[in-house]
Amino acid sequence: MEDVLNRDIRAGARLLRWIDDGVGEARSILKQLYSHTGKAAIVGITGNPGAGKSTLVDQLITRYRAQKKTVAVVAVDPSSPFSGGAILGDRIRMQEHALDEGVFIRSFATRGHLGGLTGTTADVVHVFDAMGWDLVLVETVGVGQDEVEVQRLAHTTVVVMAPGMGDEIQAIKAGILEIADIFAVNKSDRDGADRTVRELRLMLDMGKEAIQQQQERVCPPGWMPRVIKTVSTKGEGIDELMTALAEHRKAYENACRDPNFVRARLRREFLDVFRRTLFTRGWSYLMHEDHLKEVVEKLQDGSSDPYTLAKQAVNALGRL
Amino acid sequence: MEDVLNRDIRAGARLLRWIDDGVGEARSILKQLYSHTGKAAIVGITGNPGAGKSTLVDQLITRYRAQKKTVAVVAVDPSSPFSGGAILGDRIRMQEHALDEGVFIRSFATRGHLGGLTGTTADVVHVFDAMGWDLVLVETVGVGQDEVEVQRLAHTTVVVMAPGMGDEIQAIKAGILEIADIFAVNKSDRDGADRTVRELRLMLDMGKEAIQQQQERVCPPGWMPRVIKTVSTKGEGIDELMTALAEHRKAYENACRDPNFVRARLRREFLDVFRRTLFTRGWSYLMHEDHLKEVVEKLQDGSSDPYTLAKQAVNALGRL
Repeated sequence: MEDVLNRDIRAGARLLRWIDDGVGEARSILKQLYSHTGKAAIVGITGNPGAGKSTLVDQLITRYRAQKKTVAVVAVDPSSPFSGGAILGDRIRMQEHALDEGVFIRSFATRGHLGGLTGTTADVVHVFDAMGWDLVLVETVGVGQDEVEVQRLAHTTVVVMAPGMGDEIQAIKAGILEIADIFAVNKSDRDGADRTVRELRLMLDMGKEAIQQQQERVCPPGWMPRVIKTVSTKGEGIDELMTALAEHRKAYENACRDPNFVRARLRREFLDVFRRTLFTRGWSYLMHEDHLKEVVEKLQDGSSDPYTLAKQAVNALGRL
Repeated sequence: MEDVLNRDIRAGARLLRWIDDGVGEARSILKQLYSHTGKAAIVGITGNPGAGKSTLVDQLITRYRAQKKTVAVVAVDPSSPFSGGAILGDRIRMQEHALDEGVFIRSFATRGHLGGLTGTTADVVHVFDAMGWDLVLVETVGVGQDEVEVQRLAHTTVVVMAPGMGDEIQAIKAGILEIADIFAVNKSDRDGADRTVRELRLMLDMGKEAIQQQQERVCPPGWMPRVIKTVSTKGEGIDELMTALAEHRKAYENACRDPNFVRARLRREFLDVFRRTLFTRGWSYLMHEDHLKEVVEKLQDGSSDPYTLAKQAVNALGRL
């Protein structure tokens, strides 16, 4: 625990492994680390595969390092037997920072036993924050509901899009518009970039009220999402992106002086931990003394129904 | 309850409204309906917006009606303030079946209080099944993890794709390959359709073992996903799609003679109900006597941490 707080990479890596494996001790260490969190700037980066997200993250790491800021990257990967390759590729590309002690990159899978996120992402972000990294980049692939949930952890979220990939429509469907503080229209030297920018601005304008009225979103009051053109492979637009990130950070810090703003964030943070605790406990119960096997037998012989059995199981949870 | 079993549309619609609103009585009716389920064929249709899913669903409804089969459609919509319009459009397009008593269409939102699916979809499917509809079509938009979960409910899942929309990559990332029994490469009169078909077949071939070894997937043994070219606006390829659907149904029914296969399906069904019961109960607890407000106050004055508070809340659940 002390080693973790002193930013000992090996101790940090061990704790992260414990979290990922669900080791019991991890939980009690997390509890103690909690009071040391709240200092890091948490920046989310999300976007479809092919949008050039990795190169952009790469550029951001380099810029933040030039400002002498330390950077930890949490990459959240959907755990599909098909996707292993692509993600490994991403990781390899980021290895150019491997020798820099001011950069730390870790990937985690997302699926839990009961479906949905394992939710370790939040814990990992807390650990990095407590370790004293200045910046925690949370990188997610795709624009599904899972990614939306992960990105709600971030103080600032950048959505990376490429022109002509149908990303705009995807963004609306998956609720990405609601979480984006900054849009990076990457590969903007391609045809259709200006159209993508125009369409995004139009959508944001139409959705202005919806964005500002959302209860779930904890966003600095008055902030309207920025749309920035970038070509990450050539480093174009990265200055503008860094400026927008700094401005959003400032707006966020100002908002934190308002106790209501802080309360909304704490509430969301708690709901996230609560949901995961429910899942973990529920799963332990089902695995305990073959409860799940018993349940399935009752369903198979028709002596009960899933609704009754689920209710009984939830009632028994507290007694475990 | 009797009216619902007699396929009284008004009684069915009322029960569905109760389920959507979380009315308590809905739960006890669902329990009793459960023993009447298991007869309907449940077919999932998923695909990105723009893939031509609505037209394809339309075509399928017409074909099944020509076979004198009754069809109920459950459309699952992500509830985003931005997406209302597009979805309404879909619904209007399906209104050509509005006067046919053998067709019933209902849409539901997906987000729950604690994030993730509300999960009412499974309940709605059970109701339609108990009501005696021959076919239940479960239609989802997009290829996120939520959709994957919804489509796990289906006996047969069709993934609709359009050439050149980057859908293939999305499919890998979101785990769609693992749930698809049939791929419909729609708009296949467009450039790039053959390439999409070729790439899909290659991916399936590479992932063959992964598909067959998957524990989470309950799929008839030996079934390898089919790839079919369609042009839904012209009715092309629909015969082939109907044939593939019938063949998969046959394989599924054969598999159901194996008790292990049935057990795996019951297990998954129970886990779905269990997860939702956990969420509903958890949320009621937090809303009860201002528990959530109390929790946030403790976090704000620093007297506790989210991990301790979540544990206490889960312990208290059984006592509610």
